[in-house]
Amino acid sequence: MYIDLSLPIQPHWRYAFQHNLVSSFEKGDQWQISEFKMKSHWFSHIDFPRHTGLAFPDSESFPLDHYNGMASVLMITSPTMVNHAITAEELEKAKKGRSLEKILLIRSDWGVMTSWETHEFWSMAPYLTDEAIEWIAAQNPKTVAFDFPQDYSIRLLQDRKVSPEEQKTHIILLRQNILLVEYLANFNAIKQETCEFICLPLRIPHIDGCPVRAVAKI
Amino acid sequence: MYIDLSLPIQPHWRYAFQHNLVSSFEKGDQWQISEFKMKSHWFSHIDFPRHTGLAFPDSESFPLDHYNGMASVLMITSPTMVNHAITAEELEKAKKGRSLEKILLIRSDWGVMTSWETHEFWSMAPYLTDEAIEWIAAQNPKTVAFDFPQDYSIRLLQDRKVSPEEQKTHIILLRQNILLVEYLANFNAIKQETCEFICLPLRIPHIDGCPVRAVAKI
Repeated sequence: MYIDLSLPIQPHWRYAFQHNLVSSFEKGDQWQISEFKMKSHWFSHIDFPRHTGLAFPDSESFPLDHYNGMASVLMITSPTMVNHAITAEELEKAKKGRSLEKILLIRSDWGVMTSWETHEFWSMAPYLTDEAIEWIAAQNPKTVAFDFPQDYSIRLLQDRKVSPEEQKTHIILLRQNILLVEYLANFNAIKQETCEFICLPLRIPHIDGCPVRAVAKI
Repeated sequence: MYIDLSLPIQPHWRYAFQHNLVSSFEKGDQWQISEFKMKSHWFSHIDFPRHTGLAFPDSESFPLDHYNGMASVLMITSPTMVNHAITAEELEKAKKGRSLEKILLIRSDWGVMTSWETHEFWSMAPYLTDEAIEWIAAQNPKTVAFDFPQDYSIRLLQDRKVSPEEQKTHIILLRQNILLVEYLANFNAIKQETCEFICLPLRIPHIDGCPVRAVAKI
């Protein structure tokens, strides 16, 4: 069974996405054909280290098994997730003494509580403390995926530019070749502690990031 | 192990694909961000029946397991593949009396013989006879994928418009909700008769087709 972990790619206040028909039956064409313009970090997407600096590798350096394979779900529980700072202790508790797989899914259920179409989803999200990010790095994963905007400073993007240095997962994880899969959903539907994580960006060579279709196979 | 069955998405004479940096370190930006424009039937892609008529369903009608899961490889062997008309008898021989999976991969190795970047790959390709397409329909698959431009009339697209009625797999298969995954590659690397086929288009709701990343897991 496949569980879709991807956000639908549709008009959203954060993204100027448009899906147009360039050939349509209404216009008298014989085929329906769509066109769309996309940016590499829109909607559910994977980040490659090049996103943060010219010295860091792009998509070509990472084989598919760097970001596809068995994954461990780490579920954060907290009385409230609103502006909640996720700590290393909470992650250690979520680990439950397990030996973790090389892909980690950090589950908050924030998208169940607050629609990703609202401004609040982005401005009041839970986020990882620096110590929590260091805890993740210490597990030595290949890839980490999130169901919430994981860096505190992502909320600041609504008002100003934010540097890579302010987006701590991008410095502590991504620049160490631990890939990030951002803005996923539906982790609550996995209902088990381990799953197969399938995450496929389009095959665009030498790219800094790319929208993905990501699914869990259980 | 994952085998990439997707063509790289890069400039090609058939497709006006461009991948531009909208934010780059050379320009003094803090992040590298790419932008690209894409059409729904460019490069390796899945076709949904809506492509051929307003009466036929789009992507929303097909769950992921309609085009993901176990697949049978049917290998065509012929002294030459140049302009070769693949017959029902050849498919029956390739079946080898097996009970087939619900996804079929029709393998010709045409892309090994002739680069997909040449005009000849498209103009001199092997293709399926009407009887061969009827044979495929009779196996009652959910999805069929090809490593060659499977309809004779695809070669005519270089010179004129071609109707859905002339692209026989689109009439005999696609309009019967047997999905087509077109312009794949590397079937020769699978080296077994059955594999898990993973084929993920971006999650764009209600679309007529979409570029995919497709892989075989063996």
